[in-house]
Amino acid sequence: MPGGIDVHTRLQAPVMGMSSADGFFQGTKAALAGGTTMIIDHVCPDAGSSLLAAYEQWRGHADGQACCDYGLSVDIPRWHESLREELEALVKDKGVNSFLVFMAYKDKLQCTDGQMYEIFCTIRDLGAIAQVHAENGDIIEEEQKRLLELGITGPEGHVLSRPEEVEAEAVFRAITIAKQANCPLYVTKVMSRSAADVVAQAKRKGTVVYGEPITASLGTDGSHYWSKNWAKAAAFVTSPPVSPDPATPDHLSTLLSSGDLQVTGSAHCTFTTAQKAVGKDNFTLIPEGTNGIEERMPIVWEKCVVPGKMDENDFVAVTSTNAAKIFNCYPRKGRVAVGSDADLVLWNPKATKIISAKTHNLNVEYNIFEGTECHGVPAVVISQGRVVLEDGNLSVTQGSGRFIPRKTFPDFVYKRIKARNRLAEVHGVPRGMYDGPVHELPASVKAAAPGAGKAAAAPVRNLHQSGFSLSGSQADDHIARRTAQKIMAPPGGRSNITSLS
Amino acid sequence: MPGGIDVHTRLQAPVMGMSSADGFFQGTKAALAGGTTMIIDHVCPDAGSSLLAAYEQWRGHADGQACCDYGLSVDIPRWHESLREELEALVKDKGVNSFLVFMAYKDKLQCTDGQMYEIFCTIRDLGAIAQVHAENGDIIEEEQKRLLELGITGPEGHVLSRPEEVEAEAVFRAITIAKQANCPLYVTKVMSRSAADVVAQAKRKGTVVYGEPITASLGTDGSHYWSKNWAKAAAFVTSPPVSPDPATPDHLSTLLSSGDLQVTGSAHCTFTTAQKAVGKDNFTLIPEGTNGIEERMPIVWEKCVVPGKMDENDFVAVTSTNAAKIFNCYPRKGRVAVGSDADLVLWNPKATKIISAKTHNLNVEYNIFEGTECHGVPAVVISQGRVVLEDGNLSVTQGSGRFIPRKTFPDFVYKRIKARNRLAEVHGVPRGMYDGPVHELPASVKAAAPGAGKAAAAPVRNLHQSGFSLSGSQADDHIARRTAQKIMAPPGGRSNITSLS
Amino acid sequence: MPGGIDVHTRLQAPVMGMSSADGFFQGTKAALAGGTTMIIDHVCPDAGSSLLAAYEQWRGHADGQACCDYGLSVDIPRWHESLREELEALVKDKGVNSFLVFMAYKDKLQCTDGQMYEIFCTIRDLGAIAQVHAENGDIIEEEQKRLLELGITGPEGHVLSRPEEVEAEAVFRAITIAKQANCPLYVTKVMSRSAADVVAQAKRKGTVVYGEPITASLGTDGSHYWSKNWAKAAAFVTSPPVSPDPATPDHLSTLLSSGDLQVTGSAHCTFTTAQKAVGKDNFTLIPEGTNGIEERMPIVWEKCVVPGKMDENDFVAVTSTNAAKIFNCYPRKGRVAVGSDADLVLWNPKATKIISAKTHNLNVEYNIFEGTECHGVPAVVISQGRVVLEDGNLSVTQGSGRFIPRKTFPDFVYKRIKARNRLAEVHGVPRGMYDGPVHELPASVKAAAPGAGKAAAAPVRNLHQSGFSLSGSQADDHIARRTAQKIMAPPGGRSNITSLS
Amino acid sequence: MPGGIDVHTRLQAPVMGMSSADGFFQGTKAALAGGTTMIIDHVCPDAGSSLLAAYEQWRGHADGQACCDYGLSVDIPRWHESLREELEALVKDKGVNSFLVFMAYKDKLQCTDGQMYEIFCTIRDLGAIAQVHAENGDIIEEEQKRLLELGITGPEGHVLSRPEEVEAEAVFRAITIAKQANCPLYVTKVMSRSAADVVAQAKRKGTVVYGEPITASLGTDGSHYWSKNWAKAAAFVTSPPVSPDPATPDHLSTLLSSGDLQVTGSAHCTFTTAQKAVGKDNFTLIPEGTNGIEERMPIVWEKCVVPGKMDENDFVAVTSTNAAKIFNCYPRKGRVAVGSDADLVLWNPKATKIISAKTHNLNVEYNIFEGTECHGVPAVVISQGRVVLEDGNLSVTQGSGRFIPRKTFPDFVYKRIKARNRLAEVHGVPRGMYDGPVHELPASVKAAAPGAGKAAAAPVRNLHQSGFSLSGSQADDHIARRTAQKIMAPPGGRSNITSLS
Repeated sequence: MPGGIDVHTRLQAPVMGMSSADGFFQGTKAALAGGTTMIIDHVCPDAGSSLLAAYEQWRGHADGQACCDYGLSVDIPRWHESLREELEALVKDKGVNSFLVFMAYKDKLQCTDGQMYEIFCTIRDLGAIAQVHAENGDIIEEEQKRLLELGITGPEGHVLSRPEEVEAEAVFRAITIAKQANCPLYVTKVMSRSAADVVAQAKRKGTVVYGEPITASLGTDGSHYWSKNWAKAAAFVTSPPVSPDPATPDHLSTLLSSGDLQVTGSAHCTFTTAQKAVGKDNFTLIPEGTNGIEERMPIVWEKCVVPGKMDENDFVAVTSTNAAKIFNCYPRKGRVAVGSDADLVLWNPKATKIISAKTHNLNVEYNIFEGTECHGVPAVVISQGRVVLEDGNLSVTQGSGRFIPRKTFPDFVYKRIKARNRLAEVHGVPRGMYDGPVHELPASVKAAAPGAGKAAAAPVRNLHQSGFSLSGSQADDHIARRTAQKIMAPPGGRSNITSLS
Repeated sequence: MPGGIDVHTRLQAPVMGMSSADGFFQGTKAALAGGTTMIIDHVCPDAGSSLLAAYEQWRGHADGQACCDYGLSVDIPRWHESLREELEALVKDKGVNSFLVFMAYKDKLQCTDGQMYEIFCTIRDLGAIAQVHAENGDIIEEEQKRLLELGITGPEGHVLSRPEEVEAEAVFRAITIAKQANCPLYVTKVMSRSAADVVAQAKRKGTVVYGEPITASLGTDGSHYWSKNWAKAAAFVTSPPVSPDPATPDHLSTLLSSGDLQVTGSAHCTFTTAQKAVGKDNFTLIPEGTNGIEERMPIVWEKCVVPGKMDENDFVAVTSTNAAKIFNCYPRKGRVAVGSDADLVLWNPKATKIISAKTHNLNVEYNIFEGTECHGVPAVVISQGRVVLEDGNLSVTQGSGRFIPRKTFPDFVYKRIKARNRLAEVHGVPRGMYDGPVHELPASVKAAAPGAGKAAAAPVRNLHQSGFSLSGSQADDHIARRTAQKIMAPPGGRSNITSLS
Repeated sequence: MPGGIDVHTRLQAPVMGMSSADGFFQGTKAALAGGTTMIIDHVCPDAGSSLLAAYEQWRGHADGQACCDYGLSVDIPRWHESLREELEALVKDKGVNSFLVFMAYKDKLQCTDGQMYEIFCTIRDLGAIAQVHAENGDIIEEEQKRLLELGITGPEGHVLSRPEEVEAEAVFRAITIAKQANCPLYVTKVMSRSAADVVAQAKRKGTVVYGEPITASLGTDGSHYWSKNWAKAAAFVTSPPVSPDPATPDHLSTLLSSGDLQVTGSAHCTFTTAQKAVGKDNFTLIPEGTNGIEERMPIVWEKCVVPGKMDENDFVAVTSTNAAKIFNCYPRKGRVAVGSDADLVLWNPKATKIISAKTHNLNVEYNIFEGTECHGVPAVVISQGRVVLEDGNLSVTQGSGRFIPRKTFPDFVYKRIKARNRLAEVHGVPRGMYDGPVHELPASVKAAAPGAGKAAAAPVRNLHQSGFSLSGSQADDHIARRTAQKIMAPPGGRSNITSLS
Repeated sequence: MPGGIDVHTRLQAPVMGMSSADGFFQGTKAALAGGTTMIIDHVCPDAGSSLLAAYEQWRGHADGQACCDYGLSVDIPRWHESLREELEALVKDKGVNSFLVFMAYKDKLQCTDGQMYEIFCTIRDLGAIAQVHAENGDIIEEEQKRLLELGITGPEGHVLSRPEEVEAEAVFRAITIAKQANCPLYVTKVMSRSAADVVAQAKRKGTVVYGEPITASLGTDGSHYWSKNWAKAAAFVTSPPVSPDPATPDHLSTLLSSGDLQVTGSAHCTFTTAQKAVGKDNFTLIPEGTNGIEERMPIVWEKCVVPGKMDENDFVAVTSTNAAKIFNCYPRKGRVAVGSDADLVLWNPKATKIISAKTHNLNVEYNIFEGTECHGVPAVVISQGRVVLEDGNLSVTQGSGRFIPRKTFPDFVYKRIKARNRLAEVHGVPRGMYDGPVHELPASVKAAAPGAGKAAAAPVRNLHQSGFSLSGSQADDHIARRTAQKIMAPPGGRSNITSLS
């Protein structure tokens, strides 16, 4: 089968001046050990700094260290108009086609709904994928304050301040905005049942949305936040948190099997106990992130294939092929065929392995899946045509990983977006001028008409730039946002809306 | 049966310096004509001005003009800490126990999620009801800009800029915040199927939430926005808009019958065509509001009782009794009993009436229910013991309506809130001090630790004021917010969380 | 508050020649001890025998022994046309207005779908309530055979042969049939989440359906079927079985609180260990039934009121008032008012009690709620004006319980059924005669035309008897079955269906 | 793209001694004209006659007439044990791997639930696909009687007697039985929203179930049953009926696009007006069936691809590839590759065509899609390597179609079934013998113990034959039915169930 693609890693995550424990070398080595032959890592620019500069910095790290091929997604820490050009440059010249916005981390990374709408429109015009970290940052901040005031400072405060509903709410909102903008949406880190249900429901209604459960949400639960061992509890701190509801892994693996969720990542981002201990007196200071890059494929196999929820083909789809199609490196990746890269895995469904920090290929003391038995492991892993794992022996080469540029407008995602565009033209109702009496407003009011004064007064947006035109001559690659079909065909009949333009 | 209670009117709505067309006299006269003997009107203070002053102003208007009893809800146009005292004064001294916040009208009335959380906590501590106007103002603003740019200026632009999902999203978010704050939530103006479904779903999961479909959403649909007659189309402009989906009234009346929605209002707020025409060239300037105060009870009867969805008792509940219980004027209102006010209606299920602007008791040229036939009308209406409607003759007295002060902590709403409070104590995990190595942060970072620096550094909130205490001696009237039960009892067992306090 | 009404008991259940362990005396004594002052017991006629005779037999038992008031429902063990007259007699002369049909117990009690349809039509014409034991008997029989073949003979075989889906399926089917027959449906013993969800969903779509969770499904779970103690495991054997899913009680109590389920029973029917042991080598021979008559009200309080899911008023509704309204003994029962029976309970929410076989008022060795702590118990119980429980002392009088006859057409249930009837007239499309060519069938075929030969050939049903007429002069008390509204108003327009009659 | 596969045709349907109007020649010609290059036709044996004989008869018809390749499914008209051998022979020697059972057509074709269970077990052991015609025949019979009594004899009676709920109920039931039997289920003719929702819901819970919307349910609605033109109305008569709810096609195409439904057929089975007229005085005698073989692919394109619900790849999946995988003729069919059959279609998304009886390739006077405009049609069709459609010219060869034998245990379907089998071993609880007192039953009762006497007394089923064994040595190809996982791992812990075997 084709090697796995891990669509979400943070091997170089800078948090409070620290770097995450597993860098590109250690991280990609662990990836290969687990059957993953390509990763997509997240570039995290500082708020206010240049996205392009950060991109180059990440390329520098990765090119020197990575043992397997990699791509990059870029986080958008805080939106301002000038970023538009940077996005365009990243898309056109740098092989990046996915960007992540944050709905949490208030006063730091968090976008407003209006900003998200603008970013999504930009991304759609560029033919890229909008990713979203979905949690309601406003609520979290309030809960954090409250819990600290109550004297709760341990890792259990992390999960208490981020209840499941806070994740589901943000997912619902992100989907609503993306649908309005007719932009494809990719929800990173689906951690809870309710969040997954929101994704599934939207998908069923026809929204172009993808949800990414991760190794942690599929393979363990959040009861460990209450562990009396602080270091162990802290190892589970990530956002959204691992759900304390023990039924979550079963639910998520069912949705992954039924196609409601379609792709898996690890969100691998690890910190040593000493690093986590920066937050020993205040859970909000614990650096966030869990392991999962090495365990992803065995965990998915264990939770989905072993109990008969999916078959081997589905397994390949959710661990590799769908990712390659969404992020547009298919068929180079995600397929076994002539012309594709020789990234391959030979899977042994009879072998079993017990996950443990004692044997994992990571730099951290704790493994959140400690003790999990997996009935199915990679027997041979081939990266770029070279055997890197065989008979349990790992043999990797630092810096051998190549950057995989990804193009825009992936067919898998954008064909439907474009078709909706063709339908999305909105027309006004042709009417005669209203010529009846008009109430005279006081002068003071006219100056600041409520509700829409600003919109009316504002200089009309540059239509060329925004990708829309009234003439209908719009190029296919500029995708207009969608207007619900039923609104386009008002019950009153079509006849009165056809002749305006 | 007891006279109807219309929980949502805006008879004195000030919009752009204009007043709505039906003031307290005309509006309450129409109410009585339709079987409604009490209204709850909304006080709309200007942003930045005093709530108390606005309250007094409304009292002045209403005491002089109203023909039936009335209560007042107060809108909260923009939150700042100093309003807390005003809320307290309104609750304690002025007989107001419900407050409305806005999620739309960006840069005017719109609250952030963080502000809503704070307001909800304040309201819960006071034992009042949090009302919410649920629409995502950020998205609407973007859509309005886009449509105006496209040259769409007519009333159809109003509904095109406010698709149903934008309402549902806001309802979902408001419920999430209210649940976190353990505050009872009342969603005004449930206009669409998806919004109603969100309310129903939350209710089924145990959230204390009430949804208010209005005469317009139960009795007509939004196809009229595409009417070639501008004045008619403009008459339907209200927010959230009347849904263009023709299946909406049937769906809402079904949910109202099954108890998923529990109470009905009219959101009566009318403007003459000349007033509406202020927005003849820009739909965002059309003053918002539709009629419904007179038609509410016949429409509910027609849509719910006639087709056998509910019986007469249910009808009384959703038009009167539930409102009295939620807003705490039961059993003085909403019940036929010794000791209750003599507000009564004799209903004639055999009589029929066709609604028309020609015969309605309103000052406006259009009636949005024009032509609807109602099989069931009030035959006799008695207000404060006096017959005001009989044999089709209306006989009302200006200024006879009394202000009905309403007390806090309505049992119907707060018994469950209080019980959840008793369960909502959160405990940390008692652990030994972590004494392992701690990563040393660079000095520059320490100064501004990400994620929670602010919270950690902030002066601890005054616990007494906020109504929480660690000692468990909390008075019943200060309701703590709820923490999900399953989180309180982590799978790891209870034993390790009991000894902290 | 009004005394509790337990709508489902089987104090005289005859199983394989044995009688249940708690007869009318012991059972009603336990009822009073738990705050229940009226029960509705089930008459179980032998298949093929007279319903009236069985009724008289039950009256005999109960009049002599019962310590509290009681009513009777009658089971319909096997349908044949001649039972129609017996039903009519029971309804008109004997004060019975509810009848139970079985979808399980194949070759014994089980009805076909066609029989259920006929029974439901009869019941609707009589103005009674159709009750249903909902499990798919065909599947259960197959599963029982399979499990016995596999050598599984213990009580775990009982629950393994009756998976939750088998209950949900039958509920879905019963609701479909009842809706077609426009007959109110009452589902006894809602034991699983999926079954409850089916009821809730149907209710939301407007079906007149009531679901009865019982003490056992609200208060415990089915893990005990795997107990190594055979006698304990056997004590839980009842059908449908107590769900092994531990989340079930929480889910059912939530639905009971939200109004999706409306009434509670105990299904009390107990057997001693020696009696249960008849099935010691074959789980299908274990007599079915669990205790719950005494524990019902404390368990509902504990699961619903204590965690803040419902308030005290809701508690009264689901334990007493709703039952009185559905089964038409309101306001004599289920209400505290002048003119109502003096059946009262004084509830002490501060007292706690631990349920145990050592202290229960029953004749059996095991209590399925053993060890459950209830925070809220009846302090004083008054039956027919006499104090029967006070200071923990029970003082009852054998034979003092009166039979409470119940009338037909309860408003609470039938107002909506009747309204639907008014709408349910079906009209054909008036067309000219088809006068084109007609294919000539071979003579052999004509004799037995497929699809409907029987119907066409059958003698037309006696319309007078069946309660239908074409003339529209139908009396109100004969309720026609419902036809879905949308079908009555075909999209093609109404005009072509109005002129037929 | 690969040529279409129409999984459901009835080109030789014998009804009341008549044959359907479009035989194998005309039907397959029309198929090719619409881009379909393979069909799977249904063999309809007479009740009581040999399945094998009917199979041979169909082979005879088809081999002489078909212009495109074909497969056969066999209907099971009435179950008796002796059919087991016939099924085995068909599967092993005749290339048939799908069998259809009927839940409707009472006293003719209808199976009981118990029979379905047995058939499903047999089919599962053989590795075939269970198909089901899902409608509740009992209810339909009652409704037919009632409507005829009311004097309703026209085609509107057909749809009035088969409301949507009757279909949804049967689907729910079939899924429940199939899940118990661990048998893959294929629901033919998904006609209504509720039926589709039931399939979708089950799929999401992990059941192996496929739903087949057909050309008629995707492309038109049932308002035409009320047409004043009898012949036109009669042309729509099929079962389950085309839904009168106009929102149905939109809903079904959405579910088809989201993967909740996966495959499309036409259920093509046509009768001339003269043939339909056999039922001119009694709708139950109108031969059932509609056209759709030629229109299937253009309609799916029009409803799903044009509005952007799916892309071209999804289109190929639901019109061809999924069918080939489910019915196990992949990759010979359903794929464009070396080694696959040269059945190809060149699709022109720019061309448009208006469907009309004037231009269709059928023998009937009415086309139920009359007037539908399709934006996308097949430009070139290649069957077995020969161009059969080009430039609008159809050139077919009678008898050139080959029978395509299909093997058992399709991977696409059975991998999950087999995995579940591995988990489905059920164990009893090891307990000491119960040695307490046992109630003595009267002798008369012992003879006929209620509840399970039969099972207990019955000779134990031949385990070898039924495909089960206690030893665990079960061959992979004999699939055991599934037991819900949670039941296998009782909350009480696993320890007590491991040591039995």
